[in-house]
Amino acid sequence: MPELMVLDHDAVLAAVSPAAAIDATREAFERHHRGEWIMPAKIYLDSPPYGDFRAMPARGDELALLKWVTSFPHNPEHGLPTVSGVVCLSDRRTGVPLALLDARAVTALRTGAVAAVATLALARPGARTAGIVGCGLHGVWTARCLAAAGHGPGICCDPRTEAAEALAAELGWSVGSLPEALACDVVNTITPGAQVVVEEDDLWPGLHLNMLGADGAGKAEATVAAVAACELFCDEWDQASHGGELAGAVSDGVVTRERVTPLGAVLAGDSGGRSGPDAITLFDSTGLAIQDLAVAAAALRAAQAGVVAAGSVTL
Amino acid sequence: MPELMVLDHDAVLAAVSPAAAIDATREAFERHHRGEWIMPAKIYLDSPPYGDFRAMPARGDELALLKWVTSFPHNPEHGLPTVSGVVCLSDRRTGVPLALLDARAVTALRTGAVAAVATLALARPGARTAGIVGCGLHGVWTARCLAAAGHGPGICCDPRTEAAEALAAELGWSVGSLPEALACDVVNTITPGAQVVVEEDDLWPGLHLNMLGADGAGKAEATVAAVAACELFCDEWDQASHGGELAGAVSDGVVTRERVTPLGAVLAGDSGGRSGPDAITLFDSTGLAIQDLAVAAAALRAAQAGVVAAGSVTL
Repeated sequence: MPELMVLDHDAVLAAVSPAAAIDATREAFERHHRGEWIMPAKIYLDSPPYGDFRAMPARGDELALLKWVTSFPHNPEHGLPTVSGVVCLSDRRTGVPLALLDARAVTALRTGAVAAVATLALARPGARTAGIVGCGLHGVWTARCLAAAGHGPGICCDPRTEAAEALAAELGWSVGSLPEALACDVVNTITPGAQVVVEEDDLWPGLHLNMLGADGAGKAEATVAAVAACELFCDEWDQASHGGELAGAVSDGVVTRERVTPLGAVLAGDSGGRSGPDAITLFDSTGLAIQDLAVAAAALRAAQAGVVAAGSVTL
Repeated sequence: MPELMVLDHDAVLAAVSPAAAIDATREAFERHHRGEWIMPAKIYLDSPPYGDFRAMPARGDELALLKWVTSFPHNPEHGLPTVSGVVCLSDRRTGVPLALLDARAVTALRTGAVAAVATLALARPGARTAGIVGCGLHGVWTARCLAAAGHGPGICCDPRTEAAEALAAELGWSVGSLPEALACDVVNTITPGAQVVVEEDDLWPGLHLNMLGADGAGKAEATVAAVAACELFCDEWDQASHGGELAGAVSDGVVTRERVTPLGAVLAGDSGGRSGPDAITLFDSTGLAIQDLAVAAAALRAAQAGVVAAGSVTL
């Protein structure tokens, strides 16, 4: 009868600050690149016409993680979150489950954190302003993590004006149009991926793009021509080339694996980052289980240290 | 902040009787065969040298299931269970998690249930006696489910005499040797799969074998010659041919897919079962997520109906 620690939505966010999530995420990419952290491919379970479930496993240090998480894009129309689910952390030496965490909080925090990690590694020296295209939950956490990493002020852009206004007010940033957001030093796209927001004409020397919206077949936030015009980086080639922002350019034969550098290789010093201050860099974030493990492990350690109060459940 | 129902080990077993698990399992196989229940391939996450984790998704009716479960064969040496983990049931229309269940109880019950389902479908008319080779947790539930399906008396065989004696005492069966167990009408092998317990000379006309122990690379409970001498049935070809009892015979080229009938096809009436009373039939059980869904859904319904008391946890 294992007794599991329970970290709900608020406990996860209280346990792991954006700065801590950024540090943990950077380390996770480096350790995965070195082969110390392991991550099999995620499984998708479709649930048409509503959305899909994903089972995402990873192992690192003394922990094994499974995230069971959703993407149900029409849920907000019914007052429900797009993303929900459960993270389970287990002891990798005994298999015994140790903790359950809210997948929505872990996902939001790790999604924002990787944008900051990629920006610190890939944006041009001196890049400061941040465009946030899409101010939903993941856009909000991207902005919060960029701010924690010293970036800003930013331009918040969303067709739902109240979402953009709330984020801008929280961080002391501004609301702006799509062209205004795209003129920032670091442009972050966190839309549902249903329509293009970045075209080739929007690119300019020195720009860094974090593209986080496309995480499944048919989703894209940039045209193939825009993608092909950039120096390309991704979180993980298989996911990025099949379901990420790179997928369209790869299936068109415009982009091949040799042109795309994994973020972990840059962070570990095995590959270069941007070629120079005037390059245009694009980081394709599809979301990895090692990011979830980084954040969930940090939350578990905080709870074990008594920094935050955790619940419990006995199975 | 979803509130999930929690069914711990005892609640699962109180909620779903062996007879109910058998009915639910039979229906799950039929519906999966008809394409109504969906099951992507499971993912393995190795954790050497200790064991492995498996993420097993399935969808059926209004539910989606993820089982995060282990096989850590040396755990009992440290007083820990071989199998542990968590089952999460979610609403397939919203993705919202509904319930957590103890994976150990669900796994034991569905593993036993499928042995009974296969026996009812494939054993010769009049088969009654049951040999239980391996009286660990899954052997115990196999025996309980066979007894619930009207089979017995049985011979319980295990090198740990006290395990065989306890099971025999519970069901009013007997303890016996391996040859005595193999002489029963229905022989069930539920060993760790580390050594062969069934050879070709052990086969006799009219025998039905349920082989449940081999569920991963390198595990086998029968020789290739013994497997090849039987009429073959499996729960699912991909799992059975890669990690199940059939794997050795398939990799040796002795058995091909055409020779193996999925249990679901037999239950749905799309394929015949045994060819006659003197045939020797072998069912290779590797364990499917649809079985977990069958049992977990039945447990959830019982808890929702107030038949058993469930806990709760808020994420």
